[in-house]
Amino acid sequence: MDITKYLEEKKKVIDSALESSLIPLKEHSILYAAMAYSLLLGGKRIRPILAITTYSASGKNEADILPFACAIEMIHTYSLIHDDLPIMDNSDERRGKSSCHKVYGSDMALLAGDALLSYSFEMASNPIHRNLFDEKLLLEVVNNFALSSGVKGLVGGQVMDMISSVDEEINEETITYIDRLKTASLISLAIRTGGILAGVNESEKLALSRFGENLGISYQIIDDVLDETSSPEILGKETQQDKKNKKATFVALFGVEKSKNIAQELILKAVDFLKPYNNKYTTIIELAEFTLGRMK
Amino acid sequence: MDITKYLEEKKKVIDSALESSLIPLKEHSILYAAMAYSLLLGGKRIRPILAITTYSASGKNEADILPFACAIEMIHTYSLIHDDLPIMDNSDERRGKSSCHKVYGSDMALLAGDALLSYSFEMASNPIHRNLFDEKLLLEVVNNFALSSGVKGLVGGQVMDMISSVDEEINEETITYIDRLKTASLISLAIRTGGILAGVNESEKLALSRFGENLGISYQIIDDVLDETSSPEILGKETQQDKKNKKATFVALFGVEKSKNIAQELILKAVDFLKPYNNKYTTIIELAEFTLGRMK
Repeated sequence: MDITKYLEEKKKVIDSALESSLIPLKEHSILYAAMAYSLLLGGKRIRPILAITTYSASGKNEADILPFACAIEMIHTYSLIHDDLPIMDNSDERRGKSSCHKVYGSDMALLAGDALLSYSFEMASNPIHRNLFDEKLLLEVVNNFALSSGVKGLVGGQVMDMISSVDEEINEETITYIDRLKTASLISLAIRTGGILAGVNESEKLALSRFGENLGISYQIIDDVLDETSSPEILGKETQQDKKNKKATFVALFGVEKSKNIAQELILKAVDFLKPYNNKYTTIIELAEFTLGRMK
Repeated sequence: MDITKYLEEKKKVIDSALESSLIPLKEHSILYAAMAYSLLLGGKRIRPILAITTYSASGKNEADILPFACAIEMIHTYSLIHDDLPIMDNSDERRGKSSCHKVYGSDMALLAGDALLSYSFEMASNPIHRNLFDEKLLLEVVNNFALSSGVKGLVGGQVMDMISSVDEEINEETITYIDRLKTASLISLAIRTGGILAGVNESEKLALSRFGENLGISYQIIDDVLDETSSPEILGKETQQDKKNKKATFVALFGVEKSKNIAQELILKAVDFLKPYNNKYTTIIELAEFTLGRMK
């Protein structure tokens, strides 16, 4: 399979679904504009692509899961908007363009983030989904959204990230904890949601979660390696930011080469969890292995 | 019925439930502390009290609905934390004490608010509720949470409030719109949630929503009247703030006396919606009428 082409195609599907998903909010012109600006700013759409790919692996129609895939990308976007705020990381740029608060002001950016979080829950709990999915599964998905975005997920990770820096004594355990909460929780959520809605059993769901968790941590390490080794021209964003901000990362602790090896090992570990399912999950496995290629 | 005593008793029930509800987060010490600080800072707890009172009116046990009542108070608290931030209203005080960001910093306050919103959805979608409630009803409650907290509720109201001031041309329609979204949406949500979980039919649910909407707008007008006419000693917070901040309120548009009359008419209108249910909703009606007494 040509993974680059697959990613391109699916990104188009997601981008178009994201655009449509905001249309019901269009009358709230300013708020809608700020939400749409950040949501449609670009990005690899890796989380929604993982969600639809996992779901499709069970022979299901990817269109069914698009609203949930979009909702997960909204949670991701909300967290980026809030992270970029002057009261947090104070980043003026995102994906090579002005960040939300630079365009709409900090107050509107704060509210655009808040609104995207609520809207992701609105989309996931829309009663219309009862035509396709069992209510028990829908409730489980919503609960997973809440767990992954909250204290035991995104927000908890951001707090740990904020209070940990390389000035302090950091260790592998702390960094793994931060990466698990801040990055892996949403990547794992995407894959788990695909499994839940496809109706897989508990052990398969657990295997998918473990796959997602290890992939997610690896994904963050690869990001940190690229921040250290790549250039703004190639990456499309400023590099050497972690060093500047004294971020607690694997690269800061172990250097580039060892970090690369850890990322590779995590992908092997991730893939192991899906072995019992033979060739069912070939595409998400290929996607996981593809992420490693970004470091080459 | 002695409404003052009823409110006192129920406030104790809610305060204790709120405290317990955060215990699972205790290991996340700093974030937990910031969330607990604002959530347990006090307040009349009117929203959760309305939820349990509406639910009990159907002869149900109020303990069943406490997690949902707490979750609604968490949404309210999250919105206050974000409103108080320096990038929004820049309020140093809340309920006569330092606001969250004055104690924990703006970054932590932002995240404490974010975490409370996610946690409210986590509580509402907890699979444990399936022992007591139909999954369809639980999904409906979650969807209502999302609608009331998002673009068509709290956040949308805050945006309109932000961009409207008495300097501009304002009219009754705009102010009603702001009050409906910013205040009435959560009060109406509390009452509606009580009805949904008690299993009332669609027309009764609609009547409860309309009651809540009118009560909510009235509640905001009463707040604005008190801001104009009361003193910090009596109200426990600074007064004459709306005038200072040129807020678009009924008082700014019509003056105190006419605003009082409008608040009164809205309560009469609210109560009318519950007439078809004879004496079932006596207590929430008494609570609604009691709110008017605050202006005397």
